[in-house]
Amino acid sequence: MFSLPYWIDLTGVLFFALSGAQAACDKRMHRDFFGITFMGFVTAIGGGSMRDIMLGVHPLAWIRDANYLIVIGVGVLISVIFEKFLAKQKRTMLFFDSIGIALYTIIGVEASLHANVNPLAAVILGMFSAVFGGVIRDTLLNEVPLIFRKEIYATACLAGATSFVIFRLLLPQEINALLGIAITITIRLLAVRFSWSLPKMGK
Amino acid sequence: MFSLPYWIDLTGVLFFALSGAQAACDKRMHRDFFGITFMGFVTAIGGGSMRDIMLGVHPLAWIRDANYLIVIGVGVLISVIFEKFLAKQKRTMLFFDSIGIALYTIIGVEASLHANVNPLAAVILGMFSAVFGGVIRDTLLNEVPLIFRKEIYATACLAGATSFVIFRLLLPQEINALLGIAITITIRLLAVRFSWSLPKMGK
Amino acid sequence: MFSLPYWIDLTGVLFFALSGAQAACDKRMHRDFFGITFMGFVTAIGGGSMRDIMLGVHPLAWIRDANYLIVIGVGVLISVIFEKFLAKQKRTMLFFDSIGIALYTIIGVEASLHANVNPLAAVILGMFSAVFGGVIRDTLLNEVPLIFRKEIYATACLAGATSFVIFRLLLPQEINALLGIAITITIRLLAVRFSWSLPKMGK
Repeated sequence: MFSLPYWIDLTGVLFFALSGAQAACDKRMHRDFFGITFMGFVTAIGGGSMRDIMLGVHPLAWIRDANYLIVIGVGVLISVIFEKFLAKQKRTMLFFDSIGIALYTIIGVEASLHANVNPLAAVILGMFSAVFGGVIRDTLLNEVPLIFRKEIYATACLAGATSFVIFRLLLPQEINALLGIAITITIRLLAVRFSWSLPKMGK
Repeated sequence: MFSLPYWIDLTGVLFFALSGAQAACDKRMHRDFFGITFMGFVTAIGGGSMRDIMLGVHPLAWIRDANYLIVIGVGVLISVIFEKFLAKQKRTMLFFDSIGIALYTIIGVEASLHANVNPLAAVILGMFSAVFGGVIRDTLLNEVPLIFRKEIYATACLAGATSFVIFRLLLPQEINALLGIAITITIRLLAVRFSWSLPKMGK
Repeated sequence: MFSLPYWIDLTGVLFFALSGAQAACDKRMHRDFFGITFMGFVTAIGGGSMRDIMLGVHPLAWIRDANYLIVIGVGVLISVIFEKFLAKQKRTMLFFDSIGIALYTIIGVEASLHANVNPLAAVILGMFSAVFGGVIRDTLLNEVPLIFRKEIYATACLAGATSFVIFRLLLPQEINALLGIAITITIRLLAVRFSWSLPKMGK
């Protein structure tokens, strides 16, 4: 569909499936097998599917290619088998989520530009791809979506997406993708480490 | 669009409209005419529309064919006229909902296979078709979606969908559809009757 | 895409962006720059995008035409700069929201009829276009969506939409559009002024 390496896409899916299943394990009501799998699934495919639906691109990745579903299954299994271990690794999970959003941002921007979208809309769609799975995850778990909590989250995706659009004609594509991914991860991790937040508006 | 009898589809729509309107009647805030109709409508069309949007199949059934809207109107009227009677029939409503999800599961799988989707994705889309209307209904009514409560619900749909996919080339289509529908309804009703639930994961 | 004047569409976008950004400013958790922009954005594009996704019409307006994004940016800026002033103007905000839903209703009906949808579905899609942005806005802000509160809201859209469909072949299009817009605004404002509500159903 587009020219970024396939493994980047599947790696993002794996990390998001892990983060969704892990979040479900933390909540009592979702802890049966179906609930955990369902949460891993919607977290992993939510952002990309929403993007492709908005772009009118069909078939959706997981409908076209069963490998996505298999990778999600692997992520859910890892998350169930290593649950006790992972539950203690809050930092690791934060890192997984950061990798996930960084990969999905770049994939989303590239898929949008590939569909001849204007660059501003492509940046927005890249950010949407990255955060929407988590928004569904948090909404279904009855929590305030991460994107609205105080640290910088979606803004890190916007920064990575903007970098990718700007340097797209200057850098080789894989270098440019890695740069955008690094920018998103770095901003996100520094924001958590130093409690960065955007200025408040109004009174 | 696909070869299952038309009346199966409209019957599913009727039962879901009933269940959505009934749920709205139970809540004070939704009890005006618009609220009840709206809830009957989104419950009835939510799952099938979401499936067709994910498949990229257009036009949606209720946009293509006004009969769906008329059947929803009938379901809402029945639900308003017989409200007192129906409110006491918790078992009847459970039965209606079970018929609704069983019919929508099979319709969803068939529509997905017809759109050349791989069997695993077709099973998932069949389950989605069945449960998504109820997820919207419950979310709008501010309740925990049925699919996340403790009894077996979506799992019954997955079982019916899997049976339909496996026996699809062996049985005549209508027999196969009735078998899948029977499996879903049976599992769902037995699960409620005997409080079946899936094993919990983790600690 | 259809023949209603372009400025009607952009004016609706502006008013909805204002109303979304304003709602976010009222809530503490959304008051950083990203949160306010995001709320303005989803409120402004939610209804129209949902309608076009249901119709299978692509590309979505804001993806096709960056002017929509620019107008949303202007709406967000106005709302941030004049926040203190606007916060006192509850009536003005009600008026803005009424203009927004009235414009989107007519645009939605026209876009649906243009896509060869049956008139009943066109009325429903017109109403959806108008209210869906607000439903997302209120859901994300954790409030009961306006359409379910007691005054007449979506019903005003349905009235304007029905008028537009009925008089479509009798009146010149711009006159007909203005009539539908006026009907929606009038019903909505009178409903608030005189606390009109629909009759309750059931016991």
